[in-house]
Amino acid sequence: MNITGEMLIGQSAVRGTEGTLRAINPATNAKIGPDFGAGGASEVARACILAQQAFDTYRETTPEQRAQFLEEIANGILALGPALIERATQESGLPTARLEGERGRTVGQLRLFASVVRSGQYLSATLDSALPERTPPRADLRLRKIAIGPVAVFGASNFPLAFSVAGGDTAAALAAGCPVVVKTHNAHPGTSELVGRVIQQAVAACKLPEGVFSLIIGTGNEVGQALVSHPAIKAVGFTGSRQGGLALMRAAAQRREPIPVYAEMSSINPMFLLPHALAARATQIGSAFIDSLTMGVGQFCTNPGLVIGLAGEHLVQFQEAAQKALQAKAAGTMLTPGIHSAYVDGVERMGKIAGVDTLAHGLAASAPCAAQAVLFSTDAATFLATEQLEDEIFGPSSLIVACRNEDEMRAVAEHLAGQLTATLQLDSDDHALARKLLPTLERKAGRILVNGYPTGVEVSHAMVHGGPFPATSDSRSTSVGASAIDRFVRPVCYQDIPTGLLPTALQDDNPLNLARTVNGELLLG
Amino acid sequence: MNITGEMLIGQSAVRGTEGTLRAINPATNAKIGPDFGAGGASEVARACILAQQAFDTYRETTPEQRAQFLEEIANGILALGPALIERATQESGLPTARLEGERGRTVGQLRLFASVVRSGQYLSATLDSALPERTPPRADLRLRKIAIGPVAVFGASNFPLAFSVAGGDTAAALAAGCPVVVKTHNAHPGTSELVGRVIQQAVAACKLPEGVFSLIIGTGNEVGQALVSHPAIKAVGFTGSRQGGLALMRAAAQRREPIPVYAEMSSINPMFLLPHALAARATQIGSAFIDSLTMGVGQFCTNPGLVIGLAGEHLVQFQEAAQKALQAKAAGTMLTPGIHSAYVDGVERMGKIAGVDTLAHGLAASAPCAAQAVLFSTDAATFLATEQLEDEIFGPSSLIVACRNEDEMRAVAEHLAGQLTATLQLDSDDHALARKLLPTLERKAGRILVNGYPTGVEVSHAMVHGGPFPATSDSRSTSVGASAIDRFVRPVCYQDIPTGLLPTALQDDNPLNLARTVNGELLLG
Repeated sequence: MNITGEMLIGQSAVRGTEGTLRAINPATNAKIGPDFGAGGASEVARACILAQQAFDTYRETTPEQRAQFLEEIANGILALGPALIERATQESGLPTARLEGERGRTVGQLRLFASVVRSGQYLSATLDSALPERTPPRADLRLRKIAIGPVAVFGASNFPLAFSVAGGDTAAALAAGCPVVVKTHNAHPGTSELVGRVIQQAVAACKLPEGVFSLIIGTGNEVGQALVSHPAIKAVGFTGSRQGGLALMRAAAQRREPIPVYAEMSSINPMFLLPHALAARATQIGSAFIDSLTMGVGQFCTNPGLVIGLAGEHLVQFQEAAQKALQAKAAGTMLTPGIHSAYVDGVERMGKIAGVDTLAHGLAASAPCAAQAVLFSTDAATFLATEQLEDEIFGPSSLIVACRNEDEMRAVAEHLAGQLTATLQLDSDDHALARKLLPTLERKAGRILVNGYPTGVEVSHAMVHGGPFPATSDSRSTSVGASAIDRFVRPVCYQDIPTGLLPTALQDDNPLNLARTVNGELLLG
Repeated sequence: MNITGEMLIGQSAVRGTEGTLRAINPATNAKIGPDFGAGGASEVARACILAQQAFDTYRETTPEQRAQFLEEIANGILALGPALIERATQESGLPTARLEGERGRTVGQLRLFASVVRSGQYLSATLDSALPERTPPRADLRLRKIAIGPVAVFGASNFPLAFSVAGGDTAAALAAGCPVVVKTHNAHPGTSELVGRVIQQAVAACKLPEGVFSLIIGTGNEVGQALVSHPAIKAVGFTGSRQGGLALMRAAAQRREPIPVYAEMSSINPMFLLPHALAARATQIGSAFIDSLTMGVGQFCTNPGLVIGLAGEHLVQFQEAAQKALQAKAAGTMLTPGIHSAYVDGVERMGKIAGVDTLAHGLAASAPCAAQAVLFSTDAATFLATEQLEDEIFGPSSLIVACRNEDEMRAVAEHLAGQLTATLQLDSDDHALARKLLPTLERKAGRILVNGYPTGVEVSHAMVHGGPFPATSDSRSTSVGASAIDRFVRPVCYQDIPTGLLPTALQDDNPLNLARTVNGELLLG
């Protein structure tokens, strides 16, 4: 498949005329061909109107049709073969093995959503029988969830496959029955086009209305703002910076009809070292922590950017092990020159904050966009008094906070803003303290881990990749895992609708074999 | 129980010193004692901090404890006896029988949520087993929903019991495990205090932390704004005007940590008269429509404020029947002088719009705050061209839109903003046209009715009292029915949490007998 530099609007390929952009190989800072033509408000409008026109048909395709469509996309991504991985490697600096793994995750995600659509639990089918004899009589009431409408998706730079064009947001929205308009991430336009063409072909192969999918390219923020502001768009999925997420939230709130924004923004993912675990295995935890911190050059939303422990010999042991492990870690190429320079600036800023010590560095960086890992330390009093210390530094940087006692550790937990994850390293003798910390961490985070590391997000039914603001814009949702589909549906109640007009999901004989709540009782399909 | 004019802050009764207010009997415009002392930001803060302090304890009470608490409130409301109904009648102008019915609904709502809490389906308990042999290994992942945090509730004027202090929002939030701070509606402060004291006593009787419930009085908008802006508050429930809802949405979006607002605001509830139904029973529908329109002086969110039919003899028959029925309807006392004057203004404005005819009036009004019902008509071209015709006139006023053909009827449907309900009057020969209208109406409304009238909202499992903006601020939710609880929870994932630290809902042996999704399969409890 050739990369042409065009946008994909329904079944058309359209060359944008609002400026051009090129991908950059962050390992060399060299530009990669071809030129991509950027679009403007008129291409956004064309894609959105097509999406609107496709909506009523697409949302009422059968579960089987939608599941097969998702599987067709998954197969098409695999069929791209090594060309996709090569292009993604060039555009992202990520190693081949990592991208192959990410491709597996992307395909797995699409297949998980195919099974979610087939099971139909997300429809929340609910039936209340008519009670004509009651005073007053009760009507026949039936509820199902329907797709919310066309969705705008903004892909992430750090997952050019799994959280980009055919990534989690797109898969969840398509599964729900929502047409999708993707704004490509400019860090990987070629990867985006390859995957976009796969979806475009799957739309045709599955005989779906062309507006089910479009891919828009834009050079500045205007195209994204136009997309979020278009009346046809009814929800937004975004993974990226806090600044970017906040801008989309503002745009969505200022619409004539405000719409939900699911922005996954920033998190420093605190890890609490409980004293008995620390006494038992400070060295092991210190070394494993550095592996988690530096994995993928620290470019995970769930990177452990904050470690909280009780000051003392065991914390010193932990620090020494972490230092030793870090000093052996090679500098890795970051995703983009912009991300790299933001990392360098963030590290420099952190190093200058009064009360913060630089504990250790990884191996020095020489290549362009290569990031030297770094470990800082401070004490709880400084942390509690210095708001900047909670700012995310995207990359392999972490801060160790030494607390004088358990109360201070609890105060640090309570002080934290919303997070994607919180981790506890604990042994059985730490349960009493863990019980004190857990209620706070439940309020602060979407996922709580014990004796693990937050990097590595399973795509499964019970996963939550979400959390209170500023980790995300909407703590009621997850962007990874089966329940990500819930973001793109809304309930509709049908009162006394004749059999012939009832949606299939709500018909008496339950033709879709759904689990349904009938007069308050959950019945399996 | 005496009405003292105090606020209820936790277990204290506090006299506000930021001005006073009195209830007004809308039937006579006479003020009713006692004086109520209004609070300010300091009382708001006190209530919110108490709520925050109560939160971790309250949200982890057992389902049985929370269910009993809700039932204790229901019993306490009934135990107030006729005194509550008398006070509510004085303050609202609503007839005794209507308020007795509303009390039944309020108590029924609390009991429904007790059963919802006991069943625990809303927890969405989900377990994915560890797969240690897989590459990479999968951790043990378990998801449950937890309460979102303290909730601010703004009661409605038109349901002084069922959507006020112990109304739907409060019941759903308390059921979810959220402490509640209610801002009283100033139209019924005495009713509010009576019910508030019942909840306050139930908190004590159930040995819950006092911050689970507070009741705040305020004279202007500042108290409400302070409440929505307080950092302890994590969600808002509101029923009222669009202007009021929009103000709360803005305040919530401007917080350092934005929070969800569930505002139920305005809806004109279109009713489509399909041609065969109209030919068969124009007179009957016309007369039943007027009964629905004038019920409760038209003061329902689901009042049928718009009727769409095909021009012709049968629409004329419908209009004549409606006219005749309307002309016999007595003027009824509206809830407040403010609502009455807004109604009079709205009707006057509507009557002056070019292309709008006044078809009929109800009997003339003489008492203060009594509203004369009115029926307008126009044609589809005028409707489509005149934005004001979609503005809600709260009260017994409706507009009939005559369409030249089915296409125009569909254009009117497509033109509509978000609605709580949409109604179809149809016969079996109308199914083909209904199939064309339904996809549009599903996009526009939270509930679709056939051959009924939208007033009368069942409190059950399948009810949706919600809909796209501007009907509500969040189409993903309902404010009536069992799934109203979903508004006040968020998911948390527990990864590799030791058995001793797992929440009860997620323990291996399922001690709460919950329906749970285990490795993707839904299992009954």
